[in-house]
Amino acid sequence: MSEDESTAEAEQGVEDASAAITELAKRRGFFFGSAEAYGGVAGFYTFGPQGAALKRNVEDAWRDRFTVKEGNQEIEAPTVMPEPVFEASGHLDGFDDMLVECAECGVSHRADHLVEDETEIEEAESLPIPEVEELIADHDLRCPNCGAPLAGQPVEDFNLMFETSIGPGSGQTGYLRPETAQGIFVEFPRLKEYARNQLPFGVTQIGRAYRNEISPRKGLIRTREFTQAELEQFINPERDEPSLDSVADVEVRLYPATEQEKDDGGYLLTTIGEAVESGVIANEWIGYYLGVAQRWYDRVGVDMDRFRFRQHLSGERAHYASDCWDAEAELGGVSASPESEAGEAADPSAGDWIEIAGFAYRGDYDLSKHGEHADDSFTVFEQYDEPKTVERAVVEPDMSTLGPEFGGKATDVADALSDLAARDPDAFDGETVTVEVDGEEHAVDAEVANFRIEEQTEAGEHVTPHVIEPSFGVDRTVYTIIAHAYVTDEVDGERRTYLALDPEIAPTYVGVFPLLGNDEALTAVAREVVSDLREAGLSVSYDDSGNIGRRYRRQDEIGTPFCVTVDHEGLETAGAETATIRERNTTAQVRVPIDALADELAAIRSGRKAFDDLRAEYDDGGRGR
Amino acid sequence: MSEDESTAEAEQGVEDASAAITELAKRRGFFFGSAEAYGGVAGFYTFGPQGAALKRNVEDAWRDRFTVKEGNQEIEAPTVMPEPVFEASGHLDGFDDMLVECAECGVSHRADHLVEDETEIEEAESLPIPEVEELIADHDLRCPNCGAPLAGQPVEDFNLMFETSIGPGSGQTGYLRPETAQGIFVEFPRLKEYARNQLPFGVTQIGRAYRNEISPRKGLIRTREFTQAELEQFINPERDEPSLDSVADVEVRLYPATEQEKDDGGYLLTTIGEAVESGVIANEWIGYYLGVAQRWYDRVGVDMDRFRFRQHLSGERAHYASDCWDAEAELGGVSASPESEAGEAADPSAGDWIEIAGFAYRGDYDLSKHGEHADDSFTVFEQYDEPKTVERAVVEPDMSTLGPEFGGKATDVADALSDLAARDPDAFDGETVTVEVDGEEHAVDAEVANFRIEEQTEAGEHVTPHVIEPSFGVDRTVYTIIAHAYVTDEVDGERRTYLALDPEIAPTYVGVFPLLGNDEALTAVAREVVSDLREAGLSVSYDDSGNIGRRYRRQDEIGTPFCVTVDHEGLETAGAETATIRERNTTAQVRVPIDALADELAAIRSGRKAFDDLRAEYDDGGRGR
Repeated sequence: MSEDESTAEAEQGVEDASAAITELAKRRGFFFGSAEAYGGVAGFYTFGPQGAALKRNVEDAWRDRFTVKEGNQEIEAPTVMPEPVFEASGHLDGFDDMLVECAECGVSHRADHLVEDETEIEEAESLPIPEVEELIADHDLRCPNCGAPLAGQPVEDFNLMFETSIGPGSGQTGYLRPETAQGIFVEFPRLKEYARNQLPFGVTQIGRAYRNEISPRKGLIRTREFTQAELEQFINPERDEPSLDSVADVEVRLYPATEQEKDDGGYLLTTIGEAVESGVIANEWIGYYLGVAQRWYDRVGVDMDRFRFRQHLSGERAHYASDCWDAEAELGGVSASPESEAGEAADPSAGDWIEIAGFAYRGDYDLSKHGEHADDSFTVFEQYDEPKTVERAVVEPDMSTLGPEFGGKATDVADALSDLAARDPDAFDGETVTVEVDGEEHAVDAEVANFRIEEQTEAGEHVTPHVIEPSFGVDRTVYTIIAHAYVTDEVDGERRTYLALDPEIAPTYVGVFPLLGNDEALTAVAREVVSDLREAGLSVSYDDSGNIGRRYRRQDEIGTPFCVTVDHEGLETAGAETATIRERNTTAQVRVPIDALADELAAIRSGRKAFDDLRAEYDDGGRGR
Repeated sequence: MSEDESTAEAEQGVEDASAAITELAKRRGFFFGSAEAYGGVAGFYTFGPQGAALKRNVEDAWRDRFTVKEGNQEIEAPTVMPEPVFEASGHLDGFDDMLVECAECGVSHRADHLVEDETEIEEAESLPIPEVEELIADHDLRCPNCGAPLAGQPVEDFNLMFETSIGPGSGQTGYLRPETAQGIFVEFPRLKEYARNQLPFGVTQIGRAYRNEISPRKGLIRTREFTQAELEQFINPERDEPSLDSVADVEVRLYPATEQEKDDGGYLLTTIGEAVESGVIANEWIGYYLGVAQRWYDRVGVDMDRFRFRQHLSGERAHYASDCWDAEAELGGVSASPESEAGEAADPSAGDWIEIAGFAYRGDYDLSKHGEHADDSFTVFEQYDEPKTVERAVVEPDMSTLGPEFGGKATDVADALSDLAARDPDAFDGETVTVEVDGEEHAVDAEVANFRIEEQTEAGEHVTPHVIEPSFGVDRTVYTIIAHAYVTDEVDGERRTYLALDPEIAPTYVGVFPLLGNDEALTAVAREVVSDLREAGLSVSYDDSGNIGRRYRRQDEIGTPFCVTVDHEGLETAGAETATIRERNTTAQVRVPIDALADELAAIRSGRKAFDDLRAEYDDGGRGR
């Protein structure tokens, strides 16, 4: 097979998998394009009943791990924020994509994506605009919509924030937040009070964020409105350390920048502990959160054979970020069924990898910027264990001399002397000292400056905390979980599709059916079972329509781990009444007393028992599938 | 006391209560104005750690009651929606407030609010604009900001939707949704499939909604971005009935329209069953949901002595809504402590009442509108139990005669004949039949019309479902719960403030303290208690800073029902180690074995035990407060 054929086949596979998932998602109520009755708008998706429940379960699992277990605090900020916030954060100036508009049909495209699609270049986003314009001309790139040539068309920066106007009249400009993070940063002055001014502390937020993408594509992967789960971990970089030991032995598949830059670069299979030790992961806080995240993804059902951490290349990274890693998931193929041994993809360049989370060490960039722009303190006053005595150079210029000599500039000269004393005390050793004000040099008599070294007692210092930011895309995580859970097999000679979702995450935990939908004896008992199971805190769905096989398939497709069926055989059992429990992946069944259903299913849900324990404990109905 | 003095005192009380709650909310992390470091923007609030947790608990309780227990399905739609949706829904044209701008200082005001504030008129919102302009002139109303006269200034309709542009260039106009409901209505064609085309079914959504208020006021009560919890109950009005029996005996305080229109109108204290029976509540579905809501509000901690259902006056109601009731809460005073007997406010005109939910019978308005505007079916095909044979009047006009006779209008004439046959078959009894096309009458030979009665077999019919919409303001509910839980008392001669929050709703369920923060033996045990309680699914906060009294007060102020303190006395108890549990409202304590803490506190949380049972069961430490 030629390379072209192989690529074409792989792309076909990607399309098939993604088309099958999209079809299932729409038919079964996971997600679908919004407002399609009005023709829809690209980049907006609605989660149907199954998808909304799955998404909520993912958010709850994230909250449990990154907020509760970490001892962090969660807030909820508005999605509309005023302009000055984004002047400070840099989003107003720098949050752009490159746009090129077709002169012929008027459709806009992302210029960097066109270049990446049609050339060998993989990272056109970081190229300067003139270079992208040149590449478009040199390669004679055409409009994907109408085929007209794009050479000569200007490439422009397009800001990705949705703009709106707050209040009547000219109002006040506001933007839909491009990330939840800013809602945390701007409230730092208050949040530090809630943390009683003690670093380290972390603040989380789960909520909507918005990017006005030029041309959204890839369905749920690149949307204009999406949900983020972000954690801002504030630390004193001189002192605070994560509990790295707790994740040191987590095994990870890393794709470091150095390997990406090689022609035949490969993965580094290692542990968090070793990777931090050897410096592959430059920062131990980043290492800690990669370890926590790897375990969490595994727990919620991301296939670890289709998961990796990729380090940002230096050109990809924001200038202030000292280390950045993305969690990436492979979405191209179809997962092997959970029972089979899946081979490990060894070639990092194969597969369709997308970012599902980012982990950045952002230094003091965010809080410093807000500290400069806003009217409040974005530092934490850290008390020393004991007050310190420090020597400090000070001046107390004689203004009665400076005033007449420098007139309106006297105060500026005095300030300049004060700055100089702090910066370079030796400058006051001579008879005169020279300072610069507005580009002009002024000589001042050293005695007039009144320079001296003072001892000062300091109780502590103002620290601008550094920030570690694990930032998760919730929609992408939901999509990945569905894609990795998507399995097809054969049952009784018929092709079957099911989602092998983890019980913690599945929208519904138990489907409850009367064997016959029109039999009142059976439906009455089945409805009692439903309320028993709900009472035990399990999420249950009742279904009495269609034949039993079709009802099983329906639950299989939405990933319900167990189905309970009430039949006459069970109601006529000598002794206690029984019902069957059927397991989704194997379709194996076991007959269990109805009285015991809630306890047994709750035990499996909480991990105290396995389905096989039930089969060992009770007589198997033996009817198999 | 004169009436003026009494009013002034009452207003002072309102301000005090609201100021005290706002101060507590900010200091303890419930809620505060957003982005205050940048001067803030009116109408946007951030929920701090305590508020976000409280809000989430309220949302979970709502979901449990209105989604899970009702057997409804929840979805999650985008907050940005395209323009055609709001053309159909009527928001583009009719979702306006009256704006008047001061010529002097340029500040905008709600014209109807100015009129209400300065005249006897209570419902200026429903007045026509010219009348409001006249009232402003007649009463010489002034700008509340600068005092300049507003007479002669134009009053204009101001649309309350936030507008934005989707995509690059001129893009597509989008709006931030003014209610979550539209996200449900536009997806009806898909949602009915998920419900397998069987009415009745209900769809819920909890999410952000936006109103670009002219001048937001009243803090968290009237904001520009807020959270709604809405249920759209779709029914076949000819057939579907709620299970009214389950709420028939719920006692409610109603304030019907007829009583509001009287000078000395009063409350109607009755039950849901009686109110529906007597027709005070016109629709049984509305009655059902009022009953469910009353129980729910009681459960989450709204003070039933400061709660009522107020019927909309006919002028307030949308033209398509046949009956509308608001749930209202009184927010003026301070709740009586839970132990005291609160008197019932008997005068409906006293107190500061705000709407916290609305219950509207919307008929087929929403789905009909979308059916007219959108390219999809907003009806449900309801199969008859057995196919029906019906007689139907039809025409099959002879176009070879109509064509030459009416030229370009022939098709319109044929359509008019068809409409007439369905509407009034008797019109075809004579020799000629007359139809109107574009205002012109045309006579057609009855034989040419080819009229006849046909028997048709129909399997079912297309029904446009009617909608009952319970719509809850989550932020207002959260505020009401805090306001009604706010209590001040005296403990050990010191004034204390606490929130008497219900355990289901409180942000934290247990505070755990070592008696001394710097004693390693105590902190180690206390931290073990924390993880035991977390393991049992309880929300726990650990605190070892400051003296124990201050730590109790901190938990009191955020409404934590119980505090567990680990002390040396407990560790030295003969037999099992013990710790004290302190109850928030009474500050009573009981000493309980540390091994039993998780079980006992979980039992209270789930309502299986009361704190007094613990006191009876274990020896009271007897140290009281």
